[in-house]
Amino acid sequence: MAERLREGLWRKEYGTSLPPERELARIMGVSRDTLRRALEVLEEEGLVYRRQGSGTFVARRATFRARLLGFTEEMRALGLIPSSRFLGGGRGPATAEEAFQLRLSPGEEVLRLERLRLADEEPMALERAALPVWALEEIPEGSLYQALEARGLRPVRALQRLRAVVAREEDRLLGVEPGAPLLYLERVSFLPDGRPVEFVKSRYRGDRYELLVELFCATPGPP
Amino acid sequence: MAERLREGLWRKEYGTSLPPERELARIMGVSRDTLRRALEVLEEEGLVYRRQGSGTFVARRATFRARLLGFTEEMRALGLIPSSRFLGGGRGPATAEEAFQLRLSPGEEVLRLERLRLADEEPMALERAALPVWALEEIPEGSLYQALEARGLRPVRALQRLRAVVAREEDRLLGVEPGAPLLYLERVSFLPDGRPVEFVKSRYRGDRYELLVELFCATPGPP
Repeated sequence: MAERLREGLWRKEYGTSLPPERELARIMGVSRDTLRRALEVLEEEGLVYRRQGSGTFVARRATFRARLLGFTEEMRALGLIPSSRFLGGGRGPATAEEAFQLRLSPGEEVLRLERLRLADEEPMALERAALPVWALEEIPEGSLYQALEARGLRPVRALQRLRAVVAREEDRLLGVEPGAPLLYLERVSFLPDGRPVEFVKSRYRGDRYELLVELFCATPGPP
Repeated sequence: MAERLREGLWRKEYGTSLPPERELARIMGVSRDTLRRALEVLEEEGLVYRRQGSGTFVARRATFRARLLGFTEEMRALGLIPSSRFLGGGRGPATAEEAFQLRLSPGEEVLRLERLRLADEEPMALERAALPVWALEEIPEGSLYQALEARGLRPVRALQRLRAVVAREEDRLLGVEPGAPLLYLERVSFLPDGRPVEFVKSRYRGDRYELLVELFCATPGPP
């Protein structure tokens, strides 16, 4: 049953509402109980979400085709309006991890920037960036990538780790409950000369975001 | 130093304990302070974890550098021993979603294959594959990719979606509780002539698996 419902959904536009349960059960020719169980499966898969009193909706998950863009540019590429809430930041000595990722010497300073990133005014990701101070001395007003570009320091390549985690108490800022699925991204971006210019850790809402990656053949072993 | 240590971790030691700090420092030819800082970096990266009183262990999360491999090949590339438990499968008419993804006409048949994939005898992923019957008529004994290759049908390119979801009741097969984070992957793979040859949905354990993706610049807007 969930399979049939999923079939019906996958071509639907994100964000559209489903018919009321009673009507949908009639259309599908099943009992309301059966329908509810199927909707539960789809909700757990993040394909639909329910709002008390207003019904069931196709999840608004934006699919980003992976390439090296800053959040602002990425959201615009997705047709969403990006905005940010500044949570904290400033200059300070690099942690061991930051020093390692940014290839700094112990004690060198980094500029840190923690922001809640929104798309169409709804929380999308929590982002913590660290940059060497030679790249940026002060927290920019708008897009980090535009500030870097203005200084001739736009990264051209990045390595990005992706894993699934669950929301913690402090992720409530994202508008989700603890336990909700989040896509954790960790990125180190490099300049054309190979120097790392930013180290970013982000937590994206699993129900709002997915990545599309293109893979190419790599024959294993000897040819 | 952390780099050297990370290198040493990759090859063979998932889940095993590291030598005591004093000994490891001697082996690596560094001071205990330097070693501790390197271990801190690796711990923050989730590559090792420490247990009070019993030492440091290699985290069981495998980082796969994204490229187009089948599960068997991928696990071997990671130095893990792949195995499978067959859960079900067979021929049947394509669902609307399968027909769309595999560019089949309504009513055309697909071969389905549902497997629990293990690495070093521990569950790693639940995988559901569908292939057009022109590509494969019968469920192969071992690796799907090897069976395809033997028929001259090895895919060379794929589009893969990645999102974070949480485990459901039926994901207990993965050895995790409902609510655990899972990385959901959906892949359509293509032959050199552009024909889609497989459509796969997988659920990877978030605590055992992560992807490493290389990103390149894509300047937005006019150059």
